[in-house]
Formats: sequence, structure tokens, C-alpha cells
Amino acid sequence: MVKSDGPIGVFDSGLGGLTVLRSLKEAFPNEGFVYLGDTARLPYGNKSPSTLKLYVEQNIKWLESQGAKAIIVACNSASTVLTNIETEIPVFGVIEPGAKFALAMTENQSIGVIGTRATIQKKAYVDAIHRLSGHTKVFQQACPLLVSLVEEGWDEDPITNLIVYRYLSPLVAAGVDTLILGCTHYPVLRNAIQKVMGRHVNLIESSQPMLETLNLAFRSGKLKARDENLGEPDMHICATDISDSFTALAQRILAPIRIPPIERIDL
Amino acid sequence: MVKSDGPIGVFDSGLGGLTVLRSLKEAFPNEGFVYLGDTARLPYGNKSPSTLKLYVEQNIKWLESQGAKAIIVACNSASTVLTNIETEIPVFGVIEPGAKFALAMTENQSIGVIGTRATIQKKAYVDAIHRLSGHTKVFQQACPLLVSLVEEGWDEDPITNLIVYRYLSPLVAAGVDTLILGCTHYPVLRNAIQKVMGRHVNLIESSQPMLETLNLAFRSGKLKARDENLGEPDMHICATDISDSFTALAQRILAPIRIPPIERIDL
Repeated sequence: MVKSDGPIGVFDSGLGGLTVLRSLKEAFPNEGFVYLGDTARLPYGNKSPSTLKLYVEQNIKWLESQGAKAIIVACNSASTVLTNIETEIPVFGVIEPGAKFALAMTENQSIGVIGTRATIQKKAYVDAIHRLSGHTKVFQQACPLLVSLVEEGWDEDPITNLIVYRYLSPLVAAGVDTLILGCTHYPVLRNAIQKVMGRHVNLIESSQPMLETLNLAFRSGKLKARDENLGEPDMHICATDISDSFTALAQRILAPIRIPPIERIDL
Repeated sequence: MVKSDGPIGVFDSGLGGLTVLRSLKEAFPNEGFVYLGDTARLPYGNKSPSTLKLYVEQNIKWLESQGAKAIIVACNSASTVLTNIETEIPVFGVIEPGAKFALAMTENQSIGVIGTRATIQKKAYVDAIHRLSGHTKVFQQACPLLVSLVEEGWDEDPITNLIVYRYLSPLVAAGVDTLILGCTHYPVLRNAIQKVMGRHVNLIESSQPMLETLNLAFRSGKLKARDENLGEPDMHICATDISDSFTALAQRILAPIRIPPIERIDL
């Protein structure tokens, strides 16, 4: 049975997924949301697949216990281990939507992908793109330091520009015309990334494709919209650990949207 | 009762504590060691104190279950939450020994401390130094990016030099003559740090003070040496998660010592 009353659950290893939550809230203002950042166990980007899968199952179980009618896996690393996880509600990862979106954008059939070590080693986007279009060239690059730079708050910084330049130069040389930002932290560095890649390169954030995927799910009946007469929908932001720097990062990502206090939960 | 037969347990949030293990093994070749890297839940440096304390208690319990006769907390962040944890065997954190060692080295009574956000926010070294010597000036600086740089393998790199320069400039300006490397990853960046601080500045790694502390514990009878007739002692390296990049990092830290395969354990 398709549920309509529960919130949409969104989870990420940390608070980077708030970039996705913000877009979803703007696009679907009448839906309730519950966000889970697994901050006690982040980062997911350098965990082994078996550990990652265990964490993902626990996160999904917790969001189900909160009555979620659907789950958005905003974390790219987590989205790589969704196969064979059984749930009663729809679960949407960011990989397939991102791959489709990039294919719709590329003109020269050369797509770049940047992400954490886990996402890149798993070749998740490469495989997803090649399942849809065997002849498209995909160039990928792990950028483990970028998450730390965002967390340090060095978004607009010459050192960040240097590091972005080092990571992205091979993709510039490869001539990609579309770049998938395969980590929810990367949109914060969008300016630095665009500067290195050049203005003509399309930058794909996870939130754009996810919006299209959810729109489709609502239209097809896979998801049911919340009754508009139910009043103001809830918005809960929860995390498995809370520190001052997390709260500051959350405010920076969601600004100018005012956020409710982050609730600490145990898994 | 003071035990003599068990191994010495060493734990860290990750593999940085192997810098301490290596020094201990060199200094006490007849002792057995069991090392626990809590790699599934690293980094500890940005966790809240309550979460950190829970993890530390679980790590200590596990090492006790392995028959450890003493426990070395190689992680600076974890060493800040050791008060009120009850154990039947001695537990040694790195903060007090590091503070004492720095005080013995400084001539101008100006000591610098670098560490993770957790260690710096907690002012652990500042308080430890001031308990021993109220008039000594202490200048501290959180350096969250350095751990990521070590894990990326950029030990000898112009970008690393730039970041180290930015973090350490205030400490150079303050005129410290002694700098505590308050995170087990930092010894890997010793060259870059020494270059910025200048040759005259003493760099204190956690392993040196810990060696002195253990020597004292053996001499005072708080710790009993292992019987030399028992043959070759054991050396186990365990981690809560294992990935290719961890194994590579472990080999780099311990080189040229050959390491046994890392064993995966659950807490």
C-alpha cells in the first residue's frame, strides 16, 4: 500500500545531504521531512562495503520507525550499496538519477565524476552510465580532501582552489563537458569547481536529478502526496552526534532557511 | 594484582596510533602488543565528548577481554575523556605525559599545541600544563585538515606545506620554542612542521613521553615485565573496519617493520 501521511525520510553520512533536503523542501513545500545525519560514524567515504551496508540498513530501519513513506539516500557512498536491501517503502539512491541526468546533458559523450574513495572505487556512476549508454566515455577522480575543506569552512580560499585544480586537471585534460558532483558536500565548492572546469562544463548536483526522480514517482503513483488540508508539515533534523562545528555547518548549508534545533538520536 | 603475562593494549581512533606502537615495540621488544584501531568510527577528532567517552569505554572493554595487562590510549582526542572511567588495569593517556615532557623541554616557557578540534576545544594540554606550571604560556591551534592530508598520502607536498604554514603561523608569531604534536597522525608531517616552525623548535610526539611513562611504570612495579623465557611475544593489529587505503597507510607508518595482516573485529 502506498502511504501518503508520513514524512519523506532523507539520510546522509553527515550534514552534506542538507543540500539535497533544501532543494526537496523548496520543490515540495507541503511534504514533511525527517533528516538523519549519521554524524557519529561519518565519513562513509572510506568505509568498506560491508560496514557501509550495515550502517545503511540501520539508517533505513530508523527512518521507517519514524513513519517515513519513502527514503532518499542523499549520500553517494551509501547509494552504492543499496542492492539487496529489502524495504516496504520506496528507497531512492542518487546514483541512477545522477547518471541519467548527466547523459541528458552531455553533448560530446564525455562525462566526469568526482566523489569519495568509496564511490569512485565502486565505479558506481561508471556502471550506471554504461548500463544506459555503452559508448559514453566516463572519467572519474576520487577527491577525499574536499569534504574536509568544506567542514573547515575554506569554501572560498586559494588553498582550496589549488587542491581542486590538482584533482580536476585530468578531467579538464580529458575534455569532459559534464561533471557529476558525486558527494553531497561538493555543491558548497561549486564556484571553485566551475572556475577550474570552465564555464562551458555542466556541473550536476545530486539534488537536481533527485527532484526529477521524485516528481516522476509522484506522477506515476509510486508516491502519494500529503493531504494539503493537514496543515503545516513537520521538519525534523536528527543526527547521531552533535557538535558545535556540525551545527555551524548545517546553518551554513541551509542558509537563509532557518533550521529547527538538531535532535540527537541513537541507532 | 599486577599482571605480567598479558599483552600491552594500544588503541587509537584509526591507524595513527601505530606511530606510538612502533616506538613501544622498539623500546620493549619482549612485550606482547594488541593494537585496536577503531577505523569504523574514525575520526574521533570532531565527535562530542559523550559519544567519545562511549567509544573509549567500548575499546577499553575489548582490550581487557583480550587479556591486556595495561592500556595505552594513543589517541589524543580519546585521552581527553579518560576521567571517571573505571578499569582493573592501568590506563595511560597521552596528555599528561606530553605536557610533562614539553615542560621539561621548554626554555622560554612558551609551548604550542596542535591537535584535532576535539583536543583543542577541550583545552586538555593547556589544563595539564597549567596544573604543573601556572606561569607557562600555552598557545594552541586546531588543525583539522592535517589528518586528511596524511591519509591522502600528501606528506611531502607543496599544498601540505601551505596548509601547515597557515595553521602554524600564529604559533611562530607567538614565539613558542616547543610544539606538542597532539595527534598521532602528525609525526608523518614532521618535516613540513619543522620547516615552518624553524629548526630551533622542539617537536614533541606522543610516543616519546609515553615511553618515559611506561619505563617509570615498569620501574615502580605498577607494570610487570613479561617473562623472557616465554618465547616470542604476540603482536596483533586489529581494526573495526578494513579498507585498502587503511592497509596501505598502516604499512607506510610502520615501514620498514613488516606487519601481520590486520584482523577485523566488531565492538
